[in-house]
Amino acid sequence: MMTDIQIARQAVKLPIAEVAAGLGLSPADILPYGHDKAKITHAAIAALQGRAPGRLVLVTAINPTPAGEGKTTTTVGLGDALNRIGKRTTICIREASLGPNFGMKGGAAGGGRAQIVPMEDMNLHFTGDFHAITSAHNLLAAMIDNHIYWGNELNIDSRRIAWRRVMDMNDRALRDVALGLGGVANGFPRQSGFDITVASEVMAILCLARDLADLQDRLGRIVIGYTRDRTPITARDLQADGAMTVLLKDALQPNLVQTLENNPALVHGGPFGNIAHGCNSVIATRAALAMSDYVVTEAGFGADLGAEKFLDIKCRMAGLTPSVAVLVATIRALKMNGGTARADLGHQDAAAVTRGCANLGRHIENLHGFGLPVVVALNHFDGDSPAEIAALQDCCAAHGVKAILARHWAEGGAGAEDLAREVTALVEGNSVDFHKLYPDTMPLWQKIETICTRIYRAAHAEAAPGVREQLARWEEAGHAKMPVCIAKTQYSFTTDPAIRGAPEGHIIPVREVRLNAGAGFVVAICGEIMTMPGLPSRPAAQTITLDAEGQVEGLF
Amino acid sequence: MMTDIQIARQAVKLPIAEVAAGLGLSPADILPYGHDKAKITHAAIAALQGRAPGRLVLVTAINPTPAGEGKTTTTVGLGDALNRIGKRTTICIREASLGPNFGMKGGAAGGGRAQIVPMEDMNLHFTGDFHAITSAHNLLAAMIDNHIYWGNELNIDSRRIAWRRVMDMNDRALRDVALGLGGVANGFPRQSGFDITVASEVMAILCLARDLADLQDRLGRIVIGYTRDRTPITARDLQADGAMTVLLKDALQPNLVQTLENNPALVHGGPFGNIAHGCNSVIATRAALAMSDYVVTEAGFGADLGAEKFLDIKCRMAGLTPSVAVLVATIRALKMNGGTARADLGHQDAAAVTRGCANLGRHIENLHGFGLPVVVALNHFDGDSPAEIAALQDCCAAHGVKAILARHWAEGGAGAEDLAREVTALVEGNSVDFHKLYPDTMPLWQKIETICTRIYRAAHAEAAPGVREQLARWEEAGHAKMPVCIAKTQYSFTTDPAIRGAPEGHIIPVREVRLNAGAGFVVAICGEIMTMPGLPSRPAAQTITLDAEGQVEGLF
Repeated sequence: MMTDIQIARQAVKLPIAEVAAGLGLSPADILPYGHDKAKITHAAIAALQGRAPGRLVLVTAINPTPAGEGKTTTTVGLGDALNRIGKRTTICIREASLGPNFGMKGGAAGGGRAQIVPMEDMNLHFTGDFHAITSAHNLLAAMIDNHIYWGNELNIDSRRIAWRRVMDMNDRALRDVALGLGGVANGFPRQSGFDITVASEVMAILCLARDLADLQDRLGRIVIGYTRDRTPITARDLQADGAMTVLLKDALQPNLVQTLENNPALVHGGPFGNIAHGCNSVIATRAALAMSDYVVTEAGFGADLGAEKFLDIKCRMAGLTPSVAVLVATIRALKMNGGTARADLGHQDAAAVTRGCANLGRHIENLHGFGLPVVVALNHFDGDSPAEIAALQDCCAAHGVKAILARHWAEGGAGAEDLAREVTALVEGNSVDFHKLYPDTMPLWQKIETICTRIYRAAHAEAAPGVREQLARWEEAGHAKMPVCIAKTQYSFTTDPAIRGAPEGHIIPVREVRLNAGAGFVVAICGEIMTMPGLPSRPAAQTITLDAEGQVEGLF
Repeated sequence: MMTDIQIARQAVKLPIAEVAAGLGLSPADILPYGHDKAKITHAAIAALQGRAPGRLVLVTAINPTPAGEGKTTTTVGLGDALNRIGKRTTICIREASLGPNFGMKGGAAGGGRAQIVPMEDMNLHFTGDFHAITSAHNLLAAMIDNHIYWGNELNIDSRRIAWRRVMDMNDRALRDVALGLGGVANGFPRQSGFDITVASEVMAILCLARDLADLQDRLGRIVIGYTRDRTPITARDLQADGAMTVLLKDALQPNLVQTLENNPALVHGGPFGNIAHGCNSVIATRAALAMSDYVVTEAGFGADLGAEKFLDIKCRMAGLTPSVAVLVATIRALKMNGGTARADLGHQDAAAVTRGCANLGRHIENLHGFGLPVVVALNHFDGDSPAEIAALQDCCAAHGVKAILARHWAEGGAGAEDLAREVTALVEGNSVDFHKLYPDTMPLWQKIETICTRIYRAAHAEAAPGVREQLARWEEAGHAKMPVCIAKTQYSFTTDPAIRGAPEGHIIPVREVRLNAGAGFVVAICGEIMTMPGLPSRPAAQTITLDAEGQVEGLF
């Protein structure tokens, strides 16, 4: 059997200008990066305005387990299948972060016969977007310390600086640093640290901005810290927003690549799924909708975190209306949610599937709560037994939805045509009654409580001391209408990653809240959230190398 | 009068594939980055092997002053002029560092009618080479602390780690940091710091590597630090060399752009001119030589630092033989070398020119010492008087060389045709007796002394305690044959930047020596050398922004 990378290397790619032509884009509308990647220019994006948008299909999943669900694979397979059945379809997914690939073998955009290429580039520097975000973020950081160095006219309280530095690297030694050491010429010592680039608010901003002007407005609104009397200081106060926009002007243009079946994919932006909203850029999604009958996109982690944020943050800000949700599950992952240990996944166990379906059912209910039609995509593995599949189908039927067997991993788009037909059946001729979970006007704490009780089915949320007072101060300062982004483990509806299935009645402790005034949301930190990963004892970097033909080994 | 950026924006650029075609490169030989930039593929570079090289013209200068000399402008103008008189000529220069542009207005590649475009891109992310270098450098840094975190099998002495981290940003707060704070999960606290990316040994390595295999060999040889008993630990010991090579594989491919007159320019690599050798990549220079009759390239700073390193480090390692040196001077800079204050440069003063010519004459002698024919390029300013020009010409005549008036800044290549004709006259039909300053086999300290006495005309070099012992240890460890890279102020033949002209008999104190085992040279630090700049009190970043047409303002 061929590995993902072997399959990817056998891909017969179209020149990227031909892929662009399929979207109605001329050679002048794109900026090529090599022969198989391109950015769509700002001018071409602007020219799409006013076009009637296509249908937006959200691919989401049950809570992730070590068994794997194949959400991206399904996104790609469904996109290819929709193209096969005659729907002009574009796929929209996030870009990969470079740093973590040097820790654990990872990478890949999809898998098997459902992949996006060029895979190596997408897992390395790609078109440089993340590097631009790193530069823009760190320019602002340098300007903060520089401002203090030259007299601190704005009276920034160096104990209350919230803006850290970032690096696209797994480097735990940078989590907590003292900087400005070494004497007068190097500034005032203070404690700070580095996050990984995908955790930068600049990343979230890039992914939510509508255009360059909106990007600069949002960058300007970033609150970098406070004065001693708690007056917020913004990036605009430091006059950093213009230069940051200049650094990001190319990065804001979405990246065009293709699937193994030569269908278009926009791969753009990659915010964290916990402390940020975890989906690809608004610009890419809107451009794709303007150029296609269908757009298939995905949200990070399970539907409790990913879909909720996609719907309540991204769709709210961008004015998007999704038409249908595809909920991805595997028999193996359902069994793990039903209590099966990873080592026992080889054994058939329909009862475990039925138990695990409690998790699936909860997500179906939640998605229905947003007014979305739902189809379950069973990402098929060879070992799945008829009894196990039947158990899943029974569960889905009880929730009034279909579970469609999808074999895109083995067969490419052809294997997901049934799924594509169910998607179009749910979408076409039906009007969607999409509604967000909460209105803009709901108080911030109540928004947090609403997500915790209605989506996570907690008894209530519990604020650490000072949290509610902090939220009240932000409401007074004009941030009351922001949506809330919950940072929480992706493995459970609770804050305990070990509790699978469909728990209820638990408490969600809100340890800390953070203001992302530029991105436009308030982050509620529930439990431990790591924003700078470390490398493992045997990092993948030790085996990553070029082979004799100059191809990358060890990355996948 | 139009500014540089206004002229650059009026450029009628050829599609980069056409520029490539002029070099005999097919569309498959290049990787486009947008429509006006491309990388030349490794395969295309490899296919050039065995071709007879063209002539290599080195552009260097008198010691820099605030008056400006216009070395890059002359490099571009001469390249255009050689093309005009029928010589197929390629220009090779360094890439700009992004970070410093946000401190002082800067940027530009050349000036007036002698520029390389696209100017904005070249001063921002360009093709991402420096970001790749930052990533590769910092991956190695992360792997060092990670190795210690997981048990320190190699017994790295955390007090003797020489490998810092890098960022392409002017950020003085990062010069000296304590990292690994925050407890067990974050590692062992230690003191370290950040340099700017251009100061990374990875940058020097990229610029000296012949191909991917040589790149990986050199990366593997990097000495990151020592054990308690002073055994060196290399990047290869950490198994970092393969992954670093993967991160650099695209960056090693030279970048093709064009002059305002549509002639080819390879802009690739940009090592510091003090702690590194300060010239563009060996790969670019060799590729250009294989594709051209003439290659015009430049070396950093004045001829004492830049040309010496170009000849003794780059040419030595790459087996290059230059054919001629073009020494750039301006009347204004000569007057400053002759004692005129900057505010008085508007006054005609032929006597000051004559006094300043001592500096010029010293450089001519030094270049003749390498066996190179020399021509002086007088980069013309409107205010230059006939008497001042005559003073310069007399000085040059006394050294047996011609001073050619060059008006490329105002007139483009047409203004430098006289210079081009003198260059070809010196080159064609003459054989060059090029010889390096010292043989590989000379002991390291003696190499330092040789540069100090023969090039800087010092009485002698003076080693700080421990320096000669350190050099002896490196000689024993197998590094005896390395050339030496002197890190010293560029403003003077001495270590005091205020002493202009042609001082002699001074002492050069060697404060510290550093081993760049991967790059393949020993650095001798003479005086204060800053490897992480800071931002000024009013950084350029505060006025850099996009204008209504989406064009960059404030960068130039």
